[in-house]
Amino acid sequence: MRKINIALLGCGVVGSGTYNILKDKRKEFKTIYGIDIAVTKILVKNIAKDRKGIDKNLLTTDFNSILNDQSIQIVVEVMGSIDLAREYTLKAINAKKNVVSANKDLIALSFAEILAAAKNNNVVFAYEASVAGAIPIIGVINRSLVGKTFNKVLGILNGTTNYILTKMTRDGLTYKEALQEATELGYAEIDPTSDVMGLDSARKIAILSSIAFKREVTFNDVHVEGITKITAEDIDFAKLFGYTIKLLAIGEETEGKIIARVHPTLVSNTHPLANVNDSYNSIYLNAESGDTMLYGKGAGDLPTGSAVVGDIVDACRLLEAPIDSKNYSTCYRDVELGELNDINSKMFLKINTKHEVGTLAKITSKFEKNNINIESITQTLLSEDDVVLCILTEKCSKLSIEKALESIEKFDVVKSVISTMMVL
Amino acid sequence: MRKINIALLGCGVVGSGTYNILKDKRKEFKTIYGIDIAVTKILVKNIAKDRKGIDKNLLTTDFNSILNDQSIQIVVEVMGSIDLAREYTLKAINAKKNVVSANKDLIALSFAEILAAAKNNNVVFAYEASVAGAIPIIGVINRSLVGKTFNKVLGILNGTTNYILTKMTRDGLTYKEALQEATELGYAEIDPTSDVMGLDSARKIAILSSIAFKREVTFNDVHVEGITKITAEDIDFAKLFGYTIKLLAIGEETEGKIIARVHPTLVSNTHPLANVNDSYNSIYLNAESGDTMLYGKGAGDLPTGSAVVGDIVDACRLLEAPIDSKNYSTCYRDVELGELNDINSKMFLKINTKHEVGTLAKITSKFEKNNINIESITQTLLSEDDVVLCILTEKCSKLSIEKALESIEKFDVVKSVISTMMVL
Repeated sequence: MRKINIALLGCGVVGSGTYNILKDKRKEFKTIYGIDIAVTKILVKNIAKDRKGIDKNLLTTDFNSILNDQSIQIVVEVMGSIDLAREYTLKAINAKKNVVSANKDLIALSFAEILAAAKNNNVVFAYEASVAGAIPIIGVINRSLVGKTFNKVLGILNGTTNYILTKMTRDGLTYKEALQEATELGYAEIDPTSDVMGLDSARKIAILSSIAFKREVTFNDVHVEGITKITAEDIDFAKLFGYTIKLLAIGEETEGKIIARVHPTLVSNTHPLANVNDSYNSIYLNAESGDTMLYGKGAGDLPTGSAVVGDIVDACRLLEAPIDSKNYSTCYRDVELGELNDINSKMFLKINTKHEVGTLAKITSKFEKNNINIESITQTLLSEDDVVLCILTEKCSKLSIEKALESIEKFDVVKSVISTMMVL
Repeated sequence: MRKINIALLGCGVVGSGTYNILKDKRKEFKTIYGIDIAVTKILVKNIAKDRKGIDKNLLTTDFNSILNDQSIQIVVEVMGSIDLAREYTLKAINAKKNVVSANKDLIALSFAEILAAAKNNNVVFAYEASVAGAIPIIGVINRSLVGKTFNKVLGILNGTTNYILTKMTRDGLTYKEALQEATELGYAEIDPTSDVMGLDSARKIAILSSIAFKREVTFNDVHVEGITKITAEDIDFAKLFGYTIKLLAIGEETEGKIIARVHPTLVSNTHPLANVNDSYNSIYLNAESGDTMLYGKGAGDLPTGSAVVGDIVDACRLLEAPIDSKNYSTCYRDVELGELNDINSKMFLKINTKHEVGTLAKITSKFEKNNINIESITQTLLSEDDVVLCILTEKCSKLSIEKALESIEKFDVVKSVISTMMVL
């Protein structure tokens, strides 16, 4: 029987989830795979802290005692943070240890660097737990669907914002009310910035784009817009046209460029992503050879812990795999990154105007001039001299929309362009 | 660079899809994984037949020329049928060749036998393409979610029947009309028996149950009921209670027994499976540590071909893996199989009665006697002496329902029990 010793870096929610699953499954893994997986060291900050169910003898505060332990073949990084995690990850890899990571913040910044180090040292670097705990999207893209060429990866990747938008859509809450409810229920953190500004989704789509298109896309390359400006009115107008507003994270390869972005998007009610509600996550993969969607909760100790365990078992299997075959993805392709203005999309526009004869003709003439076809339009009189125009365009370039709006904003009758949103 | 030679057994839809993807991806696989995968032989019945894009020099009608070719490490069985495929699969494995199979009919009958042979010969047996082409459910259960313990696997596993039920539900077609439309559109085969009787779904849930619960469940162990008796009226009554009728394939471990079954089921409209429409497939995995759902088209040359290719690349990686680690699943557990009557479920009943005072009291007394609570009931007067009672029970044992119905059917006022359906 092969014995595989493992060290955990960190013993928080994911770390203890991983520890417990490995303990529960130890006998099963012996029986099925002939491997005996044992956690032999756990790096923590404070040994004295009470940790229910964790053997105290495994705890250490000294990373070097793990690094120099030749019996440890796999290091599991579940400590979070960026700088220290990066240092430990690279040190472990350079010491020829296989690394399993749940750290999306780090991977969304240093993916290519870490993969290159893993290749140089002929070790596995695995990261299923870094995106969407209960949804095994990394393995699906990297392994099962390796025969596919992806056009687009679409995701609802953040449970907090999806919960807020669901509450606004279903129960008519305002953004503030929905956020408050999410906070009270523990779905939103005390400081919800990273979620509501779209940063958490951006990190995840950076990783998913990198593996789907095999070209590094970092957090800094993602165009991001959060949900803080969405109003109940936006949601109602979207409904009127048959759409639901979702915070989508989208990676796509189009006309030889890769673009990754996160923004509120009008999703047609007939698209399966429109029905992904509450704190659920979902990822929709679009490929010539058929679409696939995955759905589940995003986070939690056991979902994320089981993603880590899947990677550990896989790493055990790959220990003897030939060089180059130990890692599923490389960022080897030389493809340019595109700008938001390169995107072709249907657009949803909300414009506030005065109530004057000829307003609509003036505005629509600017769309015509920029070759933008209008699919639907509604005009709502809010008060005597206050009109809201909602316009759904056919597919057009974002650049042409920007140009049209620049001219439209100059009209005296136009009070303001309230919002513009892309449509899936 | 490692060179891996492959033989295809069969060159139909899936075989040629596999061939084309391998050709397209050859350079990519060299770059990323350092493996050069080449198809060097293809077994066909008739060499003269025109096959666009396939190199004629690869074709052979002689299986032994593949079996005795020491340079071939992986055999891909995409020929279908049972007996001959079984013979070739076992011969290839016994000749120490790794086998990738798309043959659900065979695996649903001989899974444990084939896995044992693979283990004895220290070769890979992979079968992602055997269930739901575009949905990588085998890899998700066997690899990514290896850290989970499943309670239940629920699937809409047959596109034809889902298309028919969708048409009946959405457009009010009768079963006959919907089947005719499915046939005209090529969704249903000329002889639709295997689909509409639930046999195709039964083969798939046999395989999924075997890997989820690690105990062989064969096609013969699955309790099967098709959709041929579903009426427009059933669908309307289900709607009234907030349910959609779907042909579900269900594998579950409950009270120490494994039960696999396929039957029309009332799915609550709030469950994500209720929204899986047209010819789409979906699989819902229920585990203590979080639920996951996958969604996509079931079949087709490229979806199924890409599932085969995923298995081929994985097999290349595992060639040097230690014994026991080459295969992801074994049917090692010693668990009993259960009967339908062991199931606890909400039930939907449709009973035709005369229009007489006291009928409802008589019938409901029998439910009470068998400890069955009623959740909802509707009574519809069809004609002067013709009443339809629809009853939705709370969770109860199927056995208690059978007992209650046995007594109810004896009442003079009861014309017939029209249908009973389980509720998800």
